[in-house]
Amino acid sequence: MIKEGETVHLTDNKTSFFLKLKKGEKFGTHKGTIEHNEIIQKNYGDYIKTHKGHKFQILKPTLYDIIMFGIKRKTQIIYPKDSAYITLKLGLRSGMKVLESGIGSGALSIVMANAVYPDGKIYAYEKEEKHIEVAKQNLEFAGFSEIVEIFHKDLSEVEEENFDAAFIDVREPWLYIKKLKELLKKGSPIGFLVPTVNQIILLLEELNKNNFIQIETMEILLRKYKPVPDRLRPEDRMVAHTGYLIFAKNG
Amino acid sequence: MIKEGETVHLTDNKTSFFLKLKKGEKFGTHKGTIEHNEIIQKNYGDYIKTHKGHKFQILKPTLYDIIMFGIKRKTQIIYPKDSAYITLKLGLRSGMKVLESGIGSGALSIVMANAVYPDGKIYAYEKEEKHIEVAKQNLEFAGFSEIVEIFHKDLSEVEEENFDAAFIDVREPWLYIKKLKELLKKGSPIGFLVPTVNQIILLLEELNKNNFIQIETMEILLRKYKPVPDRLRPEDRMVAHTGYLIFAKNG
Amino acid sequence: MIKEGETVHLTDNKTSFFLKLKKGEKFGTHKGTIEHNEIIQKNYGDYIKTHKGHKFQILKPTLYDIIMFGIKRKTQIIYPKDSAYITLKLGLRSGMKVLESGIGSGALSIVMANAVYPDGKIYAYEKEEKHIEVAKQNLEFAGFSEIVEIFHKDLSEVEEENFDAAFIDVREPWLYIKKLKELLKKGSPIGFLVPTVNQIILLLEELNKNNFIQIETMEILLRKYKPVPDRLRPEDRMVAHTGYLIFAKNG
Amino acid sequence: MIKEGETVHLTDNKTSFFLKLKKGEKFGTHKGTIEHNEIIQKNYGDYIKTHKGHKFQILKPTLYDIIMFGIKRKTQIIYPKDSAYITLKLGLRSGMKVLESGIGSGALSIVMANAVYPDGKIYAYEKEEKHIEVAKQNLEFAGFSEIVEIFHKDLSEVEEENFDAAFIDVREPWLYIKKLKELLKKGSPIGFLVPTVNQIILLLEELNKNNFIQIETMEILLRKYKPVPDRLRPEDRMVAHTGYLIFAKNG
Repeated sequence: MIKEGETVHLTDNKTSFFLKLKKGEKFGTHKGTIEHNEIIQKNYGDYIKTHKGHKFQILKPTLYDIIMFGIKRKTQIIYPKDSAYITLKLGLRSGMKVLESGIGSGALSIVMANAVYPDGKIYAYEKEEKHIEVAKQNLEFAGFSEIVEIFHKDLSEVEEENFDAAFIDVREPWLYIKKLKELLKKGSPIGFLVPTVNQIILLLEELNKNNFIQIETMEILLRKYKPVPDRLRPEDRMVAHTGYLIFAKNG
Repeated sequence: MIKEGETVHLTDNKTSFFLKLKKGEKFGTHKGTIEHNEIIQKNYGDYIKTHKGHKFQILKPTLYDIIMFGIKRKTQIIYPKDSAYITLKLGLRSGMKVLESGIGSGALSIVMANAVYPDGKIYAYEKEEKHIEVAKQNLEFAGFSEIVEIFHKDLSEVEEENFDAAFIDVREPWLYIKKLKELLKKGSPIGFLVPTVNQIILLLEELNKNNFIQIETMEILLRKYKPVPDRLRPEDRMVAHTGYLIFAKNG
Repeated sequence: MIKEGETVHLTDNKTSFFLKLKKGEKFGTHKGTIEHNEIIQKNYGDYIKTHKGHKFQILKPTLYDIIMFGIKRKTQIIYPKDSAYITLKLGLRSGMKVLESGIGSGALSIVMANAVYPDGKIYAYEKEEKHIEVAKQNLEFAGFSEIVEIFHKDLSEVEEENFDAAFIDVREPWLYIKKLKELLKKGSPIGFLVPTVNQIILLLEELNKNNFIQIETMEILLRKYKPVPDRLRPEDRMVAHTGYLIFAKNG
Repeated sequence: MIKEGETVHLTDNKTSFFLKLKKGEKFGTHKGTIEHNEIIQKNYGDYIKTHKGHKFQILKPTLYDIIMFGIKRKTQIIYPKDSAYITLKLGLRSGMKVLESGIGSGALSIVMANAVYPDGKIYAYEKEEKHIEVAKQNLEFAGFSEIVEIFHKDLSEVEEENFDAAFIDVREPWLYIKKLKELLKKGSPIGFLVPTVNQIILLLEELNKNNFIQIETMEILLRKYKPVPDRLRPEDRMVAHTGYLIFAKNG
């Protein structure tokens, strides 16, 4: 049974809301008002109606739901198909010291923080001040503000050293390769996301020039199926591109 | 500088070895013998030659390397492109109690253990005794034997309850859906991997019949590029199929 | 220079029109009126403005343009990525006698007619009368009404025999396999398009039962790139599914 | 029943042979000898044994089989998934005058010849003399030597004009764009195949500079399924890349 103080995920499969429940409060949606009291004592999986009769399902928010539906997005986020793979490919685990730049809305930071929890730390460098406040709120909402420290700095200004891993999502990553070589421990993994092939080319040239090793380039495609058992088939359309992933080790 | 006692990852990009370094010891490969003493005091990223002159590169083993090259495989493993996404899609984080069945060689268990570390636990049910010993060794090698408890039991015999999430990789998952509904907390996520569309169909029918919600079916494709900056193009061939992923919540 | 009597293809990349030019005539679009006289004496590739100033480009209609933008669509058509491959996989060439059922809007018939031109013939069987009139108009527009003969009949009622090849796009193709075995010459190729995996399963069973040989199943994916040379990348979204193709030979 | 004089396609699904049948002759394979007399009077779809007992199936050669298994390959060929689409996208039909360069082994020429048959013509320009003889033999084998005329010339030396369409498969197509603009009729379609993204970038720049219109870039993926009805699933591996296709019109 759902209790006061819990955060619930309401969805009609088009819109999602995350509500921290407090007796007596109301929540206004574009489809009508919901009373917190009516949610309390229901079960996860139950439905709740607005005063206009529109139905929302009450779900327990998972980390995935928080990333996809719960956080504020001021930038294009790195999607789970990519962020999950990045985190594993970098081999992130508890205790690791990780460099991230930029942070954007913090969607990747949350996934990486989960992997280095509780003894590791993400040092996130972001030069755009406007992103920092949003990222902070999102990390707090996900419960990882202790694990991620955000610096209002360009990647060129990083002073911290001896990183166990790094992930770089900036427009011109090739400008920072020499710097990154100094920041990373010898043999440590680094990853990049770039949307265009022109960026891959410039980045690979610079990685080669600076003797990075085990260089790999790839893309990940997620194809959904309509889950109808007697007429099973892929969805008509899919996301065809988010970004290319480049990985290497500091050789 | 690499020290005695560390485990290093040696690779010639075809074969990989993981060595725990001890002064005075030798290691025999099909390409000649390597002296541990010669590795000690080198740096990660350096090369080492066997007595026959074959070169291996010395890398720091990441969790990814351990899964892909370090663990023993007695079964088809769940690959990182899938295991990373499964773990995030189930929303695994520290403190969660997770059901897994079967365990196979433990490749997924390692990734899930990393996500629920240090306060969560994976309960892994495996009916084939021969897999259990290998999985245990692999979990120990990866450093997660405390987080994963393996039971020599079929999924139908599980007595533990109140799971926060579950992942099922058995031949006929549809036989266990009623049981799984009882084992999982209300609203909690569950995932499945099946290799054939026939299995998807039978599984979706049973999930529908038992009022699971938010049912999704998908596949993940990883496409690699030849990382040559002045002739950038995808590799000629790729893995076209590992398995289909089905996710749902206990509605 | 464009002359009276020619058919031109006008496009603003969103809407396409095909106009047979006649001096003095006008053509009304939702974006304003175009005078035929203004098109006559322009060149292909030039632009023409409506009286409201909206620009359309004047192109020479290719067979591809006719199929994609020129024909009337009353049904889901078989797209060029599939119809081109079907035609080649069936090995269609001049002189062949080909069975098609159903005809839908005739988009595949046009491509197949082009391949068997001028000495072959497509026998198209369509049980829905409403499609036949549209298909006839489309075939005439494409210039292939001599090559395709349409019969208002179900596939079960076909009396013609000794076909060199067949393509079947009906809801339950497995009901006709015995019949098709009689209609096709020994060793001749046959193809099918079905949208769901459930249909593939039933079809493959029946093909096996009736000793069809060289059975193959596949799908074709077309992925477009944004053609911007300094920011080259795939389009954000793509068509993820049109149908599965099944091919076999009458063994 | 198969008669003397016919060409048959023998396959064991690994190796393919095309035999013109003549009473009394023998054919030696690496798996033993086959007597032509034993094939004559069998039916398409039947099996024939070598004197060592190895079985080959007797099939009727389709145009597809000729391209995939019958022609000699001295170069990488353009595969049916691409050549079929190219031919349709260029809108090839009887009567068209088409420019091709280079010809390679002639696999694309065969498919294009089939589309422009009988009143059109392919002008194929190939600068490597060694390819020309092979291409000629392949075109003759496929029955299209009347439709394709091969010139031992570089694309820069073409004197013929007023082409209705063109397809260019050379290493540096961007060097010829100005020339191609003169050779093609206004508004006519042109296509290119290049294996790397670097080539796409240089080609797109030059097409833009020369006012080509309706520029498109794409790739086609063919994914095969194991045709086993009770265990239906994609094949484990697939071809991930043959080449990128670029299309435009002479604006």
